[in-house]
Amino acid sequence: MNKAYDCLIIGAGPAGLTAGIYATRYALKTIIIGKPFESIITHAWNVENYPGFKEISGMDLIERFKEHARHFGVELVEEEVVSAEKNNEFFLITTDANKKIKTKTIILAMGSVPRKLNVPNEEDFIGKGVSYCATCDAPFFKDKVVAVVGGSDSAVMTALLLSQKSKKVYILYRREKLRAHPIEIKKVNSNEKIEVVYNAQIKKLVGRDVLEKIELTNGEELSVDGVFVEIGHVPNPVIAKNLGVKINEQGFIIVDEHMRTNIERVYSAGDICGTKEKLRQVITAAAEGAKAARSAYEDIEKNKK
Amino acid sequence: MNKAYDCLIIGAGPAGLTAGIYATRYALKTIIIGKPFESIITHAWNVENYPGFKEISGMDLIERFKEHARHFGVELVEEEVVSAEKNNEFFLITTDANKKIKTKTIILAMGSVPRKLNVPNEEDFIGKGVSYCATCDAPFFKDKVVAVVGGSDSAVMTALLLSQKSKKVYILYRREKLRAHPIEIKKVNSNEKIEVVYNAQIKKLVGRDVLEKIELTNGEELSVDGVFVEIGHVPNPVIAKNLGVKINEQGFIIVDEHMRTNIERVYSAGDICGTKEKLRQVITAAAEGAKAARSAYEDIEKNKK
Repeated sequence: MNKAYDCLIIGAGPAGLTAGIYATRYALKTIIIGKPFESIITHAWNVENYPGFKEISGMDLIERFKEHARHFGVELVEEEVVSAEKNNEFFLITTDANKKIKTKTIILAMGSVPRKLNVPNEEDFIGKGVSYCATCDAPFFKDKVVAVVGGSDSAVMTALLLSQKSKKVYILYRREKLRAHPIEIKKVNSNEKIEVVYNAQIKKLVGRDVLEKIELTNGEELSVDGVFVEIGHVPNPVIAKNLGVKINEQGFIIVDEHMRTNIERVYSAGDICGTKEKLRQVITAAAEGAKAARSAYEDIEKNKK
Repeated sequence: MNKAYDCLIIGAGPAGLTAGIYATRYALKTIIIGKPFESIITHAWNVENYPGFKEISGMDLIERFKEHARHFGVELVEEEVVSAEKNNEFFLITTDANKKIKTKTIILAMGSVPRKLNVPNEEDFIGKGVSYCATCDAPFFKDKVVAVVGGSDSAVMTALLLSQKSKKVYILYRREKLRAHPIEIKKVNSNEKIEVVYNAQIKKLVGRDVLEKIELTNGEELSVDGVFVEIGHVPNPVIAKNLGVKINEQGFIIVDEHMRTNIERVYSAGDICGTKEKLRQVITAAAEGAKAARSAYEDIEKNKK
């Protein structure tokens, strides 16, 4: 409780860890509260577009970011922030382990969580056929029939991953055209194990102990052993709201070009902030982390004068 | 001349090469015109803040970016663009080897060039004591006395590099306080070979065949064998002006948050664009390259409908 930090970063994904690298290089006493291996990037079994690495798993990439941040002396506390409040010139943060930490600046980089299907019984089948993380669960579906819900890059990448071991992979997408990178769509089209079902909406999940089939709203039924839900992510800005930080209509934190929020000495970076249309990638999240750290540093310097 | 590209990128630094990686992953037929080993990043003998690599030379980093882009099928032409014009739905680019190339979109990522001292005889001493690239020339000054002009990160990093082999290193800065990262300033202060001279302005360079001394505007003289000029970089937006692209007061290309310029299907990324205050780093340039490629892809898709 006695230690006061210059910069406290909430979230340990690409944005948070890069903010840590930059903040320590600006000689700020820096702490990150978050769990690197819970970042969404760890769900990516293969990252091919972080420049410098032709191919690397999300797990390995985040490990490298983590080691990089540690190398410069960032403290990493693998807990969760449960509350944040302003107290004169400091902010006071409390973690789920009841740790209390004082800091001059805060960078909000908590990313987002997977969006659910919102159909009956969904919760009941979690771990019994329903998964939100192909990287974690794909190996359990060797020689099985699976479905991927969604039409984005991550849906298509998940289908390609599953096709390596599973017997058959459906992609269920509610629209008429996949919206993934064309290069990935080509791979899907030439993959014999993958079948894309367009205009597909799931009505319900059926099974006794484990998932057995999917019922679509058009009455069709598909026998499957697993469903991978890849329909995007939603930000979780509770702590931001605590601090009075402004959120846009889609729930993302509003920032300016230097990653400043409306609250002085509070910044944001990565998936949790910006417009809905923003390109959300490791490279862009990392760049925003760097910018947020620079703004924190500048504002601390300004206050010294 | 017959081949038409979807995306032509001018400049092969971190921004241009990342734009190439992303553009090809968007299945765009992509060509880069530029010389990776002329990018400013190659002047950095040690990059410590590109996340994922604790320490890497600028040369090695750009090599990795280049290989990454090539891996996805980007064509790289190591020439220079001498003119660009719009011709109905295409742009027509001409290189210094008189190659003519048609393209639907252009990403301007030409970076910047080192700023000169602007003192008499400067040109005469290039290669005879005056250098704009420590990575290239530091080895020539083993056991010699050198001066670095500037107070930024790159000036301080250059001084630290030179201190490894040179006998004595002056940092000549026109202000009263270095503006490099505090962590680097600490290293300078604890380095016995480095002496910082504040409020220092160079009046002229003196020497018979090679540089022998520097005369400052306050009359002081310093005997040195070499001067490393590290006073920033200026963008070179000639081709942008050709195309009617708007430039701000400092000479940088004006872009929106998606890296679009005022000219349709022309984008910009990296050091050459944005406000003067923008954080200019490998990570931010790369992120902008990714964004520019996405915008090019989206605009091409839109035009198809």
